[in-house]
Amino acid sequence: MAKAMTLLWGAGSPPCWRVMIALEEKNLQGYNQKLLSFDKMEHKSKEVLDINPRGQLPTFKHGNTIVNDSYAVCFYLESQFKSQGNKLIPDSQEEQALMYQRMFEGLTFYDKLNAVIYYDWFVPEGERHESALNRNKEALTTELKLWEGYLQKVCEGTHTQTHTHTETQADIACFGLFKLLSAKRYPELGEYYNLLKDRPSVKASWPPHWLENPEGQDTLKDI
Amino acid sequence: MAKAMTLLWGAGSPPCWRVMIALEEKNLQGYNQKLLSFDKMEHKSKEVLDINPRGQLPTFKHGNTIVNDSYAVCFYLESQFKSQGNKLIPDSQEEQALMYQRMFEGLTFYDKLNAVIYYDWFVPEGERHESALNRNKEALTTELKLWEGYLQKVCEGTHTQTHTHTETQADIACFGLFKLLSAKRYPELGEYYNLLKDRPSVKASWPPHWLENPEGQDTLKDI
Repeated sequence: MAKAMTLLWGAGSPPCWRVMIALEEKNLQGYNQKLLSFDKMEHKSKEVLDINPRGQLPTFKHGNTIVNDSYAVCFYLESQFKSQGNKLIPDSQEEQALMYQRMFEGLTFYDKLNAVIYYDWFVPEGERHESALNRNKEALTTELKLWEGYLQKVCEGTHTQTHTHTETQADIACFGLFKLLSAKRYPELGEYYNLLKDRPSVKASWPPHWLENPEGQDTLKDI
Repeated sequence: MAKAMTLLWGAGSPPCWRVMIALEEKNLQGYNQKLLSFDKMEHKSKEVLDINPRGQLPTFKHGNTIVNDSYAVCFYLESQFKSQGNKLIPDSQEEQALMYQRMFEGLTFYDKLNAVIYYDWFVPEGERHESALNRNKEALTTELKLWEGYLQKVCEGTHTQTHTHTETQADIACFGLFKLLSAKRYPELGEYYNLLKDRPSVKASWPPHWLENPEGQDTLKDI
């Protein structure tokens, strides 16, 4: 089945990594893949635009079926390959609720992370304000403290554990984000990251870009 | 079952409306609900913060289970009440893929809409730039043209129809957004909106705020 799948991806992109982890978790190794370069603007190439009008990576095709958004791919793979590989959505009501909630909070987390990392990329020079970047940093710090609290509750057992024995959609959604942060200042995030980083699905899909920069993003050094 | 559910919501919020439409579609009428005022900052009240540390609406509780993100609630309700009310996730591979894809593209659409509607709210006075607002408007226009194209393909039958006979998660996710736009300039969006607006679930949950402003948001008048 994986042979009918094609993934166009870019290194250093948490959404691309999400899809690659999900493919590994669902035992869909052997899919066609092509690493494209964001620096060379290959995500805006005809090859991508023919499948993905947004010109973004990941771009994913299964037979004639196109799914490009990384969350959409994760849901699609779980729906189509429910009984193959690892189950990514837990059964119990409480675990499901928590999994969905954290998965979507992951998008907020990602937005806040990008608003700091890519501030200079998003905002043209003449429109930049130190005060805006500082506000973005504060918002990210608040967000990280929230996640530290969530994970502390998980460790204390007051919340259902969703990440120790099985990988869920929420773990897949968030893992690449925690990778970027300081484990010193956010010990719970660091512990969670360490729990997941040795999973076969994560190791098998580790993006080369991040092998070269093991210490994380410079722009996050004061977060 | 609905009696064990509580929804705290605010009028004029597409995420709140999403949850209310989903509850109707799943035949979960009779849930406890409380309309809170954003203007009075009631979304930052203790009542909300006790359930939702982000101090946002919707805030949703089912028994002791908390799910607050609107997309998370939609997935949770469909998972927990699969065979009750209307099925919100289609069966076929092609329809599922399209539904997930559009549902998550809906978040991008919503971000671009908010970047125009709430520009003055998000950006403090001293940091505002006409050029930034214009760029946000252009990005929104590009986004809307993309959706016009998607919906045209649906009408021409080159894509699977996902919205005429059944309401899906994607329709629920996006409906409240289309409500805000000009049907004159975006006829496909207008037609799609008209297809959905008379559904019992939509009529039953119509937010009072939008009854008072039937012509849409002023800030979008030149979009």
